[in-house]
Amino acid sequence: MALKFEVLKTTGKTRRGKLYTKHGVVDTPAFMPVGTCGTVKAMMPESVASTGAQILLGNTYHLMLRPGADLVEKMGGLHKFMNWDKPILTDSGGFQVMSLTGLRKLTEEGVTFSSHVDGSKHFLSPEKSMEIQHKLDSNITMCLDECVKLPAPHDIVQKSMEMSMRWAKRSRAAFVDRDGYGIFGIQQGGNYRDLRQISADRLKEIGFDGYAIGGLAVGEGQEVMFEVLDYAPGMLPEDKPRYLMGVGRPDDIVGAVLRGVDMFDCVMPTRSGRTAQAFTRYGTVNVRNARHREDPRPLEEGCDCPLCRNYSRAYIHHLQKCNEVLAVMLLTWHNIRYYQRLMQGIRRSIEDDSLQEFAAGFYADQAKGDIEEV
Amino acid sequence: MALKFEVLKTTGKTRRGKLYTKHGVVDTPAFMPVGTCGTVKAMMPESVASTGAQILLGNTYHLMLRPGADLVEKMGGLHKFMNWDKPILTDSGGFQVMSLTGLRKLTEEGVTFSSHVDGSKHFLSPEKSMEIQHKLDSNITMCLDECVKLPAPHDIVQKSMEMSMRWAKRSRAAFVDRDGYGIFGIQQGGNYRDLRQISADRLKEIGFDGYAIGGLAVGEGQEVMFEVLDYAPGMLPEDKPRYLMGVGRPDDIVGAVLRGVDMFDCVMPTRSGRTAQAFTRYGTVNVRNARHREDPRPLEEGCDCPLCRNYSRAYIHHLQKCNEVLAVMLLTWHNIRYYQRLMQGIRRSIEDDSLQEFAAGFYADQAKGDIEEV
Repeated sequence: MALKFEVLKTTGKTRRGKLYTKHGVVDTPAFMPVGTCGTVKAMMPESVASTGAQILLGNTYHLMLRPGADLVEKMGGLHKFMNWDKPILTDSGGFQVMSLTGLRKLTEEGVTFSSHVDGSKHFLSPEKSMEIQHKLDSNITMCLDECVKLPAPHDIVQKSMEMSMRWAKRSRAAFVDRDGYGIFGIQQGGNYRDLRQISADRLKEIGFDGYAIGGLAVGEGQEVMFEVLDYAPGMLPEDKPRYLMGVGRPDDIVGAVLRGVDMFDCVMPTRSGRTAQAFTRYGTVNVRNARHREDPRPLEEGCDCPLCRNYSRAYIHHLQKCNEVLAVMLLTWHNIRYYQRLMQGIRRSIEDDSLQEFAAGFYADQAKGDIEEV
Repeated sequence: MALKFEVLKTTGKTRRGKLYTKHGVVDTPAFMPVGTCGTVKAMMPESVASTGAQILLGNTYHLMLRPGADLVEKMGGLHKFMNWDKPILTDSGGFQVMSLTGLRKLTEEGVTFSSHVDGSKHFLSPEKSMEIQHKLDSNITMCLDECVKLPAPHDIVQKSMEMSMRWAKRSRAAFVDRDGYGIFGIQQGGNYRDLRQISADRLKEIGFDGYAIGGLAVGEGQEVMFEVLDYAPGMLPEDKPRYLMGVGRPDDIVGAVLRGVDMFDCVMPTRSGRTAQAFTRYGTVNVRNARHREDPRPLEEGCDCPLCRNYSRAYIHHLQKCNEVLAVMLLTWHNIRYYQRLMQGIRRSIEDDSLQEFAAGFYADQAKGDIEEV
C-alpha cells in the first residue's frame, strides 16, 4: 500500500500508531486542525506546527471554488501554496456540497451544485473529486460519499450507504497510487449496526490505506455517537488507521479514542477562537464574560501557548471587547495548542499504560469547571 | 533631563541619533507603529519587534476608554499588559477627542466629550492627560494640545496655538519626572512661520525632552507640509529629538528626514494591511487586483518578511478574496517591515554619507511602479 501505518502499542481498543506519508510522520491518535481555504484561520502555518500539529485538513469544496485546483497545482500543490510542508488530508467536498450549497441535483453519476460564493454551477463526482484532490497534492485523499443527517429511517440510510459504497469503488479506481500518498474509504450506515457492517465489508473488499467513520457528528448527539463507536471501529481493519470525521469536542475525542479511533478533525478549536470561547483543562471559558475584566491570571495555568504565557485574562478580555484581530489570533492558537496537548497526553498515557487514569483525570478536571474567581 | 538623546552624526539637516529610555534604545530616524488599543492590529508583539521596530505608539484616548488607565496600571502598566517590553510613546488623547467624538465642549480648562464607544461623558485636561499617561507607564508622554485643520486663518491658528502653549506649560508642570521617561512639547502654528517661531520659543522656555511638530498631516497636502518642514525643525533645539506626528507615507517620511525630523508615527502600514494595500520598493500594490491571481512571484523581491519569503502573490490574492484573517496578518507584517527597512536604509545611508543617493534611489524606484506582469 502507498501509506504505511504502524501500530506501536494497543491498550484495550486504543492504539498508539504512526502513519508515514511523503511529507512526514503522523503520530496517532492525532487531531487535525482544519485549514478550510488553504489557511488555518488566523494562524501562521509555522505557529500551527509549533502547537504539535503534524497534519492539516483541507476542504476540497472550498479550494475547488477558490482559488481552484488547477491554480493550486500550477503553484506547486497545496503544501507549497500555503507554506505547510507537513502532511495534508483533504475531504472529498461531498459534505460541504450537501451542507453549504443550494440548488443541488444528486444522481448516481454525481452531484451538480451552485457555488455559495458566486452561484456558478459545478459538478462533483467520485472521479472529479479524485482529480481535484490529486491536483491539490493531498497526502490522504478521501472517497466521495453521501451522508444522511440523523435520525433517519433504515431504508433511507441503507440506500444512501449503498450509493456511497459504489462511489467508494469508483473513487478507489480513479485514485492515482503514489508512494507516501493514500486514499481512505468512508464507512456509512448511520446508527444501524447491520448497515455499518455491510459498509465495512464492502470497503474492505475494495481495500484502502485507511478507513473513516462517516455520518456521525451530524446531529445525533454524543450518546448515539458513542453507541455506534462501541462497535463501528472494530468492523474496520486493525492494521489501518481509523478516522472519525468532523469530531469533535475534547470529551468526544477522549471517548472515541477509548473506542479505538486514531484520527480526528474538527473546526471547533479554530471556530471557537473567533467566538471568544477557549478550551481549557477545566472546561470551556468565554473570555467575553465580565468576570475576567480585572483578572491578572493566565487563561489556563500551565499552558505553554503565547496567550497563557504572556497575557492576563484581563488583556484577552480587553482585546475581545475591542474586537481586535489579536484576540482571534491568540485564542485560536491557545485552542489548537489545547487540542494538541490533549492528543499528546493521550499518546503518552498509552505508552505509559495509564490511559484509563488519564481519561478519568480528564473527565474529573472538565467537570470541575473554570478556576475560581480572584 | 530624564531622557538622554545623542546625535551621532549630522548630514545636511538630517541627524542620526539614539534616544535612551528605561525600556531600551531607539535609533533615529525612527518610525513607530501604532498600537491603538494596546495591540498593533493583527500582529503579535514579538512579530512587531522582529521587524526592527524599537518603539510603539499607544493612544491615550482609546486606552482611557478601554480598558481604562486604572486597570492598565493595576496590571503593571502598558508594557506588561500588552507584552511589549520596549519603549512606548503615548499621544495625549487630544487629537482623537477632536476627530472621533461628538458633543465636545472645549474650554481653557480642558475638553469634555462623549465616548465613541458607549456615549459616556469624559473630561480631558493637560493634568488629566499626564495622569493617564503616567498610569500607562508611557516612556514618552505627549503634552495635551489642540490642533486646527488646515487651511485656517491666521487668527484662528494663533488663538489655538496660544492655548496649546498654555496647556504645554500645565502639561510640563503636571508631568512626573523619572529616569528613562520624558515629556515632549508640541509645536503648533499651522503653516504660518511667525506662529511656528512663537510656538517653538514658548516650548523652549518651558523645556522638554523632545519636541514634536504638530498640526501637520491634517489635510494640507505634502507641498504645504514640506514648506513648513523647510523651517519648522530648525526652530527646535538641536540636541533634542524632533517628532513629526501622524506622518506618513514613505515619501513623506523621506522628505521629512531630509528636512531634519527624527521620529514618525502613522497608522498607514497597519491600516493598509487591512485594506489589501502593500507598500513596496516600487510603490503601493493592491493585492486584490486580478493581475495577481496567477502570479507565482513574491510581493516584493528581496523583502525578508514572512509574506515575501514564503508565499506567492497568487496566495495573498487568494486570501484577500476569501477575506481570510491571515491576509491581514501577512500584509500588516509586510508593511511594518517595509517601513522599518526604509528607516534602516535611511539610518545606514546617514552613517555612510550616502543619504542623497539613497533618497534619489528611493524616489526613482517609487516612480517606476510595481514590477512588470508575468
